[in-house]
Amino acid sequence: MPEARYIGVDLGGTLVRAALGNAAGQVLHRADAATHAERGEAAIADGIAALVRQAVGGTRLADVAAVALGVPGPVDPVSGTLYDAPNLVKGEFQIKAMLEQRLEVPVHVANDANVAAIGEWRYGGHGDTQHLVYITVSTGVGAGIIADGRVLDGFNRTAGEVGHMVIDPNGPPCNCGNRGCVEAFCSGTHIGERAREALARGESSRMLELAGGSIEAVTAKEVVAAARQGDAVAGRIFHDAADHLGLAVVNVIHLLSPEYVVIGGGVSQAGDLLFGPVRDRVARTAMTLPAKNVHVEPARLGVDSGLIGAVGMAIMAAAQSAGAPQS
Amino acid sequence: MPEARYIGVDLGGTLVRAALGNAAGQVLHRADAATHAERGEAAIADGIAALVRQAVGGTRLADVAAVALGVPGPVDPVSGTLYDAPNLVKGEFQIKAMLEQRLEVPVHVANDANVAAIGEWRYGGHGDTQHLVYITVSTGVGAGIIADGRVLDGFNRTAGEVGHMVIDPNGPPCNCGNRGCVEAFCSGTHIGERAREALARGESSRMLELAGGSIEAVTAKEVVAAARQGDAVAGRIFHDAADHLGLAVVNVIHLLSPEYVVIGGGVSQAGDLLFGPVRDRVARTAMTLPAKNVHVEPARLGVDSGLIGAVGMAIMAAAQSAGAPQS
Repeated sequence: MPEARYIGVDLGGTLVRAALGNAAGQVLHRADAATHAERGEAAIADGIAALVRQAVGGTRLADVAAVALGVPGPVDPVSGTLYDAPNLVKGEFQIKAMLEQRLEVPVHVANDANVAAIGEWRYGGHGDTQHLVYITVSTGVGAGIIADGRVLDGFNRTAGEVGHMVIDPNGPPCNCGNRGCVEAFCSGTHIGERAREALARGESSRMLELAGGSIEAVTAKEVVAAARQGDAVAGRIFHDAADHLGLAVVNVIHLLSPEYVVIGGGVSQAGDLLFGPVRDRVARTAMTLPAKNVHVEPARLGVDSGLIGAVGMAIMAAAQSAGAPQS
Repeated sequence: MPEARYIGVDLGGTLVRAALGNAAGQVLHRADAATHAERGEAAIADGIAALVRQAVGGTRLADVAAVALGVPGPVDPVSGTLYDAPNLVKGEFQIKAMLEQRLEVPVHVANDANVAAIGEWRYGGHGDTQHLVYITVSTGVGAGIIADGRVLDGFNRTAGEVGHMVIDPNGPPCNCGNRGCVEAFCSGTHIGERAREALARGESSRMLELAGGSIEAVTAKEVVAAARQGDAVAGRIFHDAADHLGLAVVNVIHLLSPEYVVIGGGVSQAGDLLFGPVRDRVARTAMTLPAKNVHVEPARLGVDSGLIGAVGMAIMAAAQSAGAPQS
């Protein structure tokens, strides 16, 4: 009998990536392509199916034990319906059914933050922990919760909306319509916004030069670059975002008592500039007992948390069907 | 074989209560006594043991299938050590060992908010839900989380510290040393404090009269009573507390996606005065999908959530030892 193979897919608004993995979660072969969200559901499903066929390499698709897919929005794991994924398709998207029709193998679907949490939990070198929260800080802020060695999904399958935890009712407006959500302080989008506001007020900063002299062109990337060069305005803006992310981590520690809080996503690439103030806030504000031996760490799998997590989810799904009574 | 019997104990800083229950969680016999925390660990354990012997009524203690105890602080469920219970004993309290020595039956120990969550979950008439968060708003604010049909304890066994979730870094100081914790807005202690501050500033309110003319004597109870009589100052103070509790509920919904958020504790006795603004805040601020079909409800078991929950925990513990392989 040949060694078992698994397919993981990480579907984003811009890029879709697929990997063939083995039972140890190692990637043997991978492929990626543009999502082309603007072409609609059928074309997206066609694109994913074609990419999966490409990623299997020399393996026959029928020999793959399971296919799992992380999707950028809330999803019903049974029907595999994706709801309300603003960066992909408006309304409901029957992504599981559409992929199963095209691939003729069972497809398992979950929210991408949950899938990335599985990746960091099983393959991120965070030991044999049973309690890990993965927070992604990127265009938005999302999270996946591993509690007692299981993904915590909740009643409406939407658990982990750390980005829309309110940490200051008088804080800046968030895209969701509220004020002072974690996302409104810490997402790349909002960090860029704070920088453009500061420049528009006439504050002087290297950020402007780094963006080629155009205020409109300043993003979180220029904030981080200027802060690294010692720019005071950029440093203050990024520190404020990191400090508020630290407050979100404190709240997560108080509510969930995780062993690991793993932070990934584009903004986490800022490294110590982010993790310094986050850890400092946790040390100053978290209660002693809940914060005891808690590790706040960068995602070890980097941009692959979601892809390797999807392979891991395929492994878990295959094990579960093997263990389940035959129907 | 006689029907199985279980003992549940609810240990508070002032009062300790014990109940004999059947397998359906019905209380057959009960007893209570002063805790006398000031007398120290051994005397507290003596008192609980005596109360348990009283609560068993005609049943022999040796015929009780399990004894379970809810305690007011973080606890290690294996060693049964209670840590850091400011209203009871400073430092570590080996309460499980001390009770087992006195009672000569196995004793199971858990945090009282978790135990009350079990009570509301199993016996509170909230259906067969698998996702319930119980929040107690009393002297302090605590919570117990049921996720996927299990108590969520976390790595340090401290999950559910909703009271110390920060919802406004510029908010009022909390006893924990931080600012703007949920507890600093919503606990009975802090509601009373807000009222005394308002009166000390010279604001005119019926609260003063209700407290016999002494500002120092005003507590949350007078705030609720005056607010019910239409007093504007009391109404504003209580509404602000309730609105902030609503924000805490929003954050809990976003993080955990529960089906039920059950609110108990002394402050919840204010009824619609509390639940009106809480539900209003949830309706205005929670995201559509996470808040879909979520019920925010008063504790149905009232002051008995913890006591009946302890009986329920004894039932669960007995079932678990019966199901476990013999060692």
